[in-house]
Amino acid sequence: MPARVLMPWADIDLPEGMYARIYDGNGPPPEDVDEIEFYVLPYDRGPVPASLLARMPALKVVQSLSAGVESLLRRVPRGVQLANGHGLHDLSVAEHALALIHASQRELPRWFAQQATGSWAREHTRSLADSRVLLIGYGAIGKAIERQLVAAEALVTRVARTARPVEDVRGIEELPALLPHADIVVLIVPDTPGTRGLLGAAQLAALPDDALIVNVGRGTAIDTAALLAETASGRLRAALDVLDPEPLPGDHPLWRVPGVIITPHVAGGSASFYPRAKRFVAEQLRRFAADAPLLNVVTTVSG
Amino acid sequence: MPARVLMPWADIDLPEGMYARIYDGNGPPPEDVDEIEFYVLPYDRGPVPASLLARMPALKVVQSLSAGVESLLRRVPRGVQLANGHGLHDLSVAEHALALIHASQRELPRWFAQQATGSWAREHTRSLADSRVLLIGYGAIGKAIERQLVAAEALVTRVARTARPVEDVRGIEELPALLPHADIVVLIVPDTPGTRGLLGAAQLAALPDDALIVNVGRGTAIDTAALLAETASGRLRAALDVLDPEPLPGDHPLWRVPGVIITPHVAGGSASFYPRAKRFVAEQLRRFAADAPLLNVVTTVSG
Repeated sequence: MPARVLMPWADIDLPEGMYARIYDGNGPPPEDVDEIEFYVLPYDRGPVPASLLARMPALKVVQSLSAGVESLLRRVPRGVQLANGHGLHDLSVAEHALALIHASQRELPRWFAQQATGSWAREHTRSLADSRVLLIGYGAIGKAIERQLVAAEALVTRVARTARPVEDVRGIEELPALLPHADIVVLIVPDTPGTRGLLGAAQLAALPDDALIVNVGRGTAIDTAALLAETASGRLRAALDVLDPEPLPGDHPLWRVPGVIITPHVAGGSASFYPRAKRFVAEQLRRFAADAPLLNVVTTVSG
Repeated sequence: MPARVLMPWADIDLPEGMYARIYDGNGPPPEDVDEIEFYVLPYDRGPVPASLLARMPALKVVQSLSAGVESLLRRVPRGVQLANGHGLHDLSVAEHALALIHASQRELPRWFAQQATGSWAREHTRSLADSRVLLIGYGAIGKAIERQLVAAEALVTRVARTARPVEDVRGIEELPALLPHADIVVLIVPDTPGTRGLLGAAQLAALPDDALIVNVGRGTAIDTAALLAETASGRLRAALDVLDPEPLPGDHPLWRVPGVIITPHVAGGSASFYPRAKRFVAEQLRRFAADAPLLNVVTTVSG
């Protein structure tokens, strides 16, 4: 019997001996999910796709398209391999970081408000060029952000959990000395015990007036109450795609602070994700068909 | 007697034998402008700074900080050298082009509207990465834009008035063949008889559905009525810092077309301009003091 695949796209070339059902997370799932062996979870479609796992006795592989799969770990049955989507969103997230930085520095909210009233009033703005950017998190996304910052003639200082002198990466313990010299801080760190509250009241206080904090990693890296205080006073600015808590409640005062831009965790979800995700899934299926080791395997529990 | 300079900044080191008065275009000008020999016009401060030219009988040099000086040419007296600010705004304009592109592709107007109501509704967006960008105008600004586009993994095709095969620059006559394959068109061309109406109804019609037109050059390059028709129908999108006419009248329907972003000719006026302008003016003053040829001289009429 051919291996059954459930995946969100119909335009993937399947290896010999595989048969695919299509389920993109919209509408009802197929009836016969009990025969599925390889399940590519639709990306960013709420809780329903993962709930199907309990109806898949033949399942061998769950391929998530998210970089983080913490919430899936306990739902994947014993003996089923789980692979994540690490790397598929890197460029999308990096691009959104640049969008947030440009929007803040070049005051796009001001111009959009003027556009709504047909007003041509002009003012000079800040620049990204010449800005001293403290880039906290220097993995694949951090490097993609850096390439675009450097092309814009910003001055980048690299920071990561552990100093890597060969790459000119400073360690996180140097933050107190680095923060006072940053015009822009870009956070792209995961949610770990070491990153929670990384920017608290003391760290924010160390930043110079008018500094911009950009977060495209995880909301927990910033103490939201401390950030609210420093932005509501007008001393600091912020552009945030991730928040703590998330979603940010509709009545949270941070939504309406001038100088704060908020997007609802959309950095990873843009068109550049899809071709990369499809190429990756095609490679995973090729490996599965050839009985070769899968990429991005998070956990394997022998059944 | 020391040479008298009138300029907008107090923090420029002057060559020996020079004396500076400061006038930044705000407030009344100094009384004794009749002794000024070198006048650095305050940037972007309306018509008053240029009106002082008529009161400067000792004038030898007018240094504009704008790239275009068409409106000054007839106001500069015979025998006075006029130099322009070509190059000082390049990085600022390039950066604004990227801000407009990111804002359009990543739908910043949507998120800002949601922010105003505290809404966390998420949607996937377009990307800049993988987009096919037709970059029309390949001078210094075009090259600065290209560096940032390439860092964002966009696919750039270079176009200029004249084909330059060695640089892989296509000639403007190839536009009909190139337009159908562009996701994004970036215009950075001056206002010349050859560029007026460069994108008219026929050229816009040649673009694929959903293409984005970005203009940071001169508004006259686009037929505004044709663009209004193609954007109001929802077929094309636009992000415009320059318009025809300019200012765009407050009741012009283009202001309120969904998918159109308008900024009021602010691309050149950002913080990155000032350090470059100050370095340039210091160099011009050094040359003036040493009786060396000035840079960026537009016209010299022997008196």
